Amino acid sequence: MRALKKKPVNGMKDILPREKEIRDYVTGVISDTYKSYGFTPIETPCMEDIGNLTGSKGGENEKLIFKVLKRGEKLKLKEAETEADVVDYGMRYDLTVPLSRFYANHANDLPAPFKALQIGSVWRADRPQRGRFRQFTQCDIDIIGDASNLAEIELILATTHTLGKLGFGGFEVRINERRILKAMAGYAGFKENEYEDVFITLDKMDKIGLDGVKEELVQNGYSPKVVEKYVSLFGVLQDNDDISAGLDLLSGHMDGSMDEEAAQNLREIAAAVSAAKSADFKLVFDPTLVRGMSYYTGTIFEVAIPEFGGSCGGGGRYDGMVGRFTGHDVPACGFSIGFERIVLLLLESGFEIPTTPQRKAFLIEKGYPKDKIADIIKEASEERAKGINVLVAGMNKNKKFQKENLKDQGYDDIKEFYRRDAQ
Amino acid sequence: MRALKKKPVNGMKDILPREKEIRDYVTGVISDTYKSYGFTPIETPCMEDIGNLTGSKGGENEKLIFKVLKRGEKLKLKEAETEADVVDYGMRYDLTVPLSRFYANHANDLPAPFKALQIGSVWRADRPQRGRFRQFTQCDIDIIGDASNLAEIELILATTHTLGKLGFGGFEVRINERRILKAMAGYAGFKENEYEDVFITLDKMDKIGLDGVKEELVQNGYSPKVVEKYVSLFGVLQDNDDISAGLDLLSGHMDGSMDEEAAQNLREIAAAVSAAKSADFKLVFDPTLVRGMSYYTGTIFEVAIPEFGGSCGGGGRYDGMVGRFTGHDVPACGFSIGFERIVLLLLESGFEIPTTPQRKAFLIEKGYPKDKIADIIKEASEERAKGINVLVAGMNKNKKFQKENLKDQGYDDIKEFYRRDAQ
Repeated sequence: MRALKKKPVNGMKDILPREKEIRDYVTGVISDTYKSYGFTPIETPCMEDIGNLTGSKGGENEKLIFKVLKRGEKLKLKEAETEADVVDYGMRYDLTVPLSRFYANHANDLPAPFKALQIGSVWRADRPQRGRFRQFTQCDIDIIGDASNLAEIELILATTHTLGKLGFGGFEVRINERRILKAMAGYAGFKENEYEDVFITLDKMDKIGLDGVKEELVQNGYSPKVVEKYVSLFGVLQDNDDISAGLDLLSGHMDGSMDEEAAQNLREIAAAVSAAKSADFKLVFDPTLVRGMSYYTGTIFEVAIPEFGGSCGGGGRYDGMVGRFTGHDVPACGFSIGFERIVLLLLESGFEIPTTPQRKAFLIEKGYPKDKIADIIKEASEERAKGINVLVAGMNKNKKFQKENLKDQGYDDIKEFYRRDAQ
Repeated sequence: MRALKKKPVNGMKDILPREKEIRDYVTGVISDTYKSYGFTPIETPCMEDIGNLTGSKGGENEKLIFKVLKRGEKLKLKEAETEADVVDYGMRYDLTVPLSRFYANHANDLPAPFKALQIGSVWRADRPQRGRFRQFTQCDIDIIGDASNLAEIELILATTHTLGKLGFGGFEVRINERRILKAMAGYAGFKENEYEDVFITLDKMDKIGLDGVKEELVQNGYSPKVVEKYVSLFGVLQDNDDISAGLDLLSGHMDGSMDEEAAQNLREIAAAVSAAKSADFKLVFDPTLVRGMSYYTGTIFEVAIPEFGGSCGGGGRYDGMVGRFTGHDVPACGFSIGFERIVLLLLESGFEIPTTPQRKAFLIEKGYPKDKIADIIKEASEERAKGINVLVAGMNKNKKFQKENLKDQGYDDIKEFYRRDAQ
């Protein structure tokens, strides 16, 4: 028999006890906090019909789908011409597409508006790189059926409250509106069918800077005059602290091209969030914020934690997606908290879980009389009934090493049971 | 654009809030109880190298693997002759194979013995049927590195304690030993290379009865004399309550063919479990218990809950599996609790989660002044700080229906905010 492979599959990882305990703790805090805002947990299968995944405007993610081979008679390998002939399902690349399908399927059994909480794995066949895995956990809250910006306000407050409970402070939530993005592109002179392409370049701002964006747009064949007009708009906002003032300023430069409804939407969200917020963060207007997925239709937002270079969560409004399943649109808005990055930050900072129960270890010498072992186990049961975690294990030959190991795992209290005392 | 599919993929299911809350509650009780026995949580990827899944003696499960298509240049569809040419990974069908790989990969970083707790999804492309899904949750505890039956004792006590905490009583844990199965087959006159085939038939005992087993064995070409001798052994045990006496009785009929070490192993486990158990259950010796997977090497066990016809969990010792990855065997023993069946029983019995926080709903009339909404949200925050779950939502046109709906979800306390009062 050939030996099996010890490593996990390429780009996916095994999670050891210390990290898993932190993950479970973070999951617990997130879940409890979101529930206190009235979000209810749901779960969908990890696989979806391949057509649902490739037809949902998921942007780049659609190129990264792990596809599942057809089974039994349905698989006709010899006749297959393309991938589409041999697969029927795919692994979900986010939780938004499955949620929209879920809502379309169960709307009659769900409250209106429906506030969903999902924590689950997603898969992307991305090039593996440090800190980035091909299976990772997403953690989303979504409000479906609320067209008002009460949805955005609740999503931002719940998510920032949760980050605060996890010990994060001094972070930013950056906000923008797809309608403002479009108004700015329109003002500059881009054609409507060019917008998405222009936004793909704009999205690179944090990597290539304003000059880089300008250069790439011109290289892509857009008129230098239009590009110049576009890029100059982003220079208008120096200090984004006051969202309302920032929007006024931008609007003043756009000769009536601003989408005033969208601007008013952001002003209202900013006012309510700053009045009711509990965590230590700033909400800032960022007209360069794009977010990849073209399924967004209104507000978009992103969390930036200074300890962590990039984004640590984000979301937005996607009023058109449920309609792809049902034929009529339903307003929807969601926020995905950066679960993996939060865990990474806590791991790297040596985080200790505040609620860990006391730990005791009982070590039993080899050859201890079998008929006396029940007494040790009963003693362990009594300790467990008091809320103490008790490990019962055989004593290893190298007892010193074993005890050091146990201390590393938090077992400070170790009781040893020897044959000679078992009379 | 074509409409997308609303249904989950065939044989998998969406989990709605009421069931999801019960699942989370059960997960919490299981996890806390197992941790109190010193088990530590780990996680492995949902996909494994396809060779690991097909080469692990997983029995029938190996035929039910969802396979993952190769990607990019590795996929050569036109040249493909067999499934093996186009797939590289597969979805795990249990948590035992991944755990063995995990242990082989990380043994140096893990305590000895290592007590693992895993809760996760597994996939089997079984024919869908009522109450049986193609994606479901398994919940396993395993002890790796302990050759003594302290492992079995702890596994049985922890699992039954957990079932007791979930409200189950009056159930049975049935136990057997692969070595006794083999000794009985050997005594009857079967050849060693026939054992696995004989056990496949014996495993059908609960469906086809003793006569059915006899008939099938003869049909399969075994000597009627051997079959008769084999089947008569199972008639020896009438009352299995006293495991030690039952083993003596069986042994007395086997003319010295009994594996006395295996029998002694069961006697010791039975004595310790009955002395230290906390839940209301009986441990019984069942010489007909087979369990499907041929990777088991010693003790095997199964939980039978009277409210539920079939088995509700099981496990056993699989001392050979880690060695498939590392080249040298490591003792291992595990118990999988029947998570899905427990959830089903609780759902059907109208179970109410005992620890649900109080729920309040704030409903805001349409057109409520935007600048006053922050006050409502602040009031909600104050309630949340007291441990109350507060839902803030817009008031629907059909307010009566909305309020009834909220009451169904446990929101007994509903506060309404009207425009006219917002001055």
